[in-house]
Amino acid sequence: MTIDLLVSEVGPRDGLQSIESIMPLAAKKAWISAEAAAGVSEIEVGSFVPAKILPQLADTAEVVAHARTVPGLTVAVLVPNLRGAQDAVAAGAHKITVPLSVSETHSLKNVRRTHAQMLEEVRAIVELIRSQPEGRRPKFEGGLSTAFGCTLEGPIPADKVVELAGRLMDCGCDEVGLSDTTGYANPSQVKDLVRRVRAEVGEEAFAGLHLHNTRGLGLANVVAGLEVGVTTFDSSLGGLGGCPFAPGASGNIVTEDLVFMLESMGLSTGIDLPRLLEVRRIVAEAVPGEELYGFTPDAGLPLGFAPAGRKADAA
Amino acid sequence: MTIDLLVSEVGPRDGLQSIESIMPLAAKKAWISAEAAAGVSEIEVGSFVPAKILPQLADTAEVVAHARTVPGLTVAVLVPNLRGAQDAVAAGAHKITVPLSVSETHSLKNVRRTHAQMLEEVRAIVELIRSQPEGRRPKFEGGLSTAFGCTLEGPIPADKVVELAGRLMDCGCDEVGLSDTTGYANPSQVKDLVRRVRAEVGEEAFAGLHLHNTRGLGLANVVAGLEVGVTTFDSSLGGLGGCPFAPGASGNIVTEDLVFMLESMGLSTGIDLPRLLEVRRIVAEAVPGEELYGFTPDAGLPLGFAPAGRKADAA
Repeated sequence: MTIDLLVSEVGPRDGLQSIESIMPLAAKKAWISAEAAAGVSEIEVGSFVPAKILPQLADTAEVVAHARTVPGLTVAVLVPNLRGAQDAVAAGAHKITVPLSVSETHSLKNVRRTHAQMLEEVRAIVELIRSQPEGRRPKFEGGLSTAFGCTLEGPIPADKVVELAGRLMDCGCDEVGLSDTTGYANPSQVKDLVRRVRAEVGEEAFAGLHLHNTRGLGLANVVAGLEVGVTTFDSSLGGLGGCPFAPGASGNIVTEDLVFMLESMGLSTGIDLPRLLEVRRIVAEAVPGEELYGFTPDAGLPLGFAPAGRKADAA
Repeated sequence: MTIDLLVSEVGPRDGLQSIESIMPLAAKKAWISAEAAAGVSEIEVGSFVPAKILPQLADTAEVVAHARTVPGLTVAVLVPNLRGAQDAVAAGAHKITVPLSVSETHSLKNVRRTHAQMLEEVRAIVELIRSQPEGRRPKFEGGLSTAFGCTLEGPIPADKVVELAGRLMDCGCDEVGLSDTTGYANPSQVKDLVRRVRAEVGEEAFAGLHLHNTRGLGLANVVAGLEVGVTTFDSSLGGLGGCPFAPGASGNIVTEDLVFMLESMGLSTGIDLPRLLEVRRIVAEAVPGEELYGFTPDAGLPLGFAPAGRKADAA
């Protein structure tokens, strides 16, 4: 079966970092294995940050080690700096993303670094990666956060996003993605910004969209992304997560609803939706105090629902 | 200010008919007046059905009488049959919609009528309307419900929707709309079906989309509608409502989130969003046991949010 679109699960990183509960290592492993078995082929499994800042992700090295044993899975991690990248490379992550907040105010508040300092860090990470033996070099994405607006600065000029996308590529990133950290994005803006950033970095170097559902527009923004040819979308199982540093900004788009929408549209994700829905149980049991979101899990699949693959077979 | 898109509020009808609480007449009047004052220019204020079936809407005639006094407001009602249409005409409604369920199983269960019987009713309503003196003839819409799928029949063939759209026009309807009664619609299907139905009935006779958010795809389907030029969308304040006859199908799209999305996209609705958000209080106080939905009301407006009009002024 051909995959039309990549759904990249970020729950074990973005979801877990923003809740108070700490998920036990065994549950993280079970979650990742079960979701990969349901057909999810890329998972951001953690973040290499000091345990005192995010104790929820303190076991990321062990999570990466487990995830690397799952056949066919791309194991992604987030790193805030060179130190984190060193850990990620040592752990054997397949993909590293460093976030760069387009809002410098947010960057200073979040990681206490200016744009210039962050780009310096990015260059150092590129050097680190290039110094690795071939076959051990992770893919390196620059993730532009607060790209659609910031709770501290307000509107973010598109020109600034495009400029920083270009500078990330100049520093040696393999690709650049756009994050709606604050849930400010709207469909027109998504189309416009994706077009502009892609024109700047090139079609192949556009990593995809990381969208939040803060104001209910998450899937509407996915549709806008599809209209301009975006093929990779981040999401979080049960909508777990958000940005702990952007007040009021919560909620990644829900993997279950995203997969339901794409498969309904005849776009194959390679994911078995009934099996994906079962993975919720693992998460719910492991962090019982935390709320899980999603409309499709509540409403159930439509009568006679045919996923993309089955539609293609019938056609 | 030019209005780009018509947001047609259906909460006083579709919302109230699907909850157990009965909203007092005074609150209905206050709701309609406040929402019109916020800039909503069309409201479906009730339904002319026997009070024993829907006691929540038993005062529709009085609601229409009040709504007619609100300057500039288009007063719409739903009617299931000729009897209801007679009441609607007598009350002086500006617009009448008769629902025709594309799923005949749903039609039989809902109103105990076949397609042929419903079309006979539609013809009788057209005669009634045409017999009125000029200036007293309400606009007449045929609303195709379960157009995107049915909880009883499953998938609904697009050809059947197109055929019934044509037959409604042949019967003398002024326009035809499409309703996702069950929350089965997906963006690809919306684009495809709107194109086909519009090709059948003509651009001017396409009334718009009535979407539900049952599986979280409501606003995503709006974006799909916008892509193919739809200019009228139904929604319900606080997401109140659904279809009491389609088990598991609940939740009109939320007016507040819809207006936020459209205005963010630079599409003018003529609606003042902060004032609209204040209308929730009237509804919440009048039916205190009922849940109100909406992401934008919870998250608040983005810092530096500029509605469509202000963006146009700045440009």
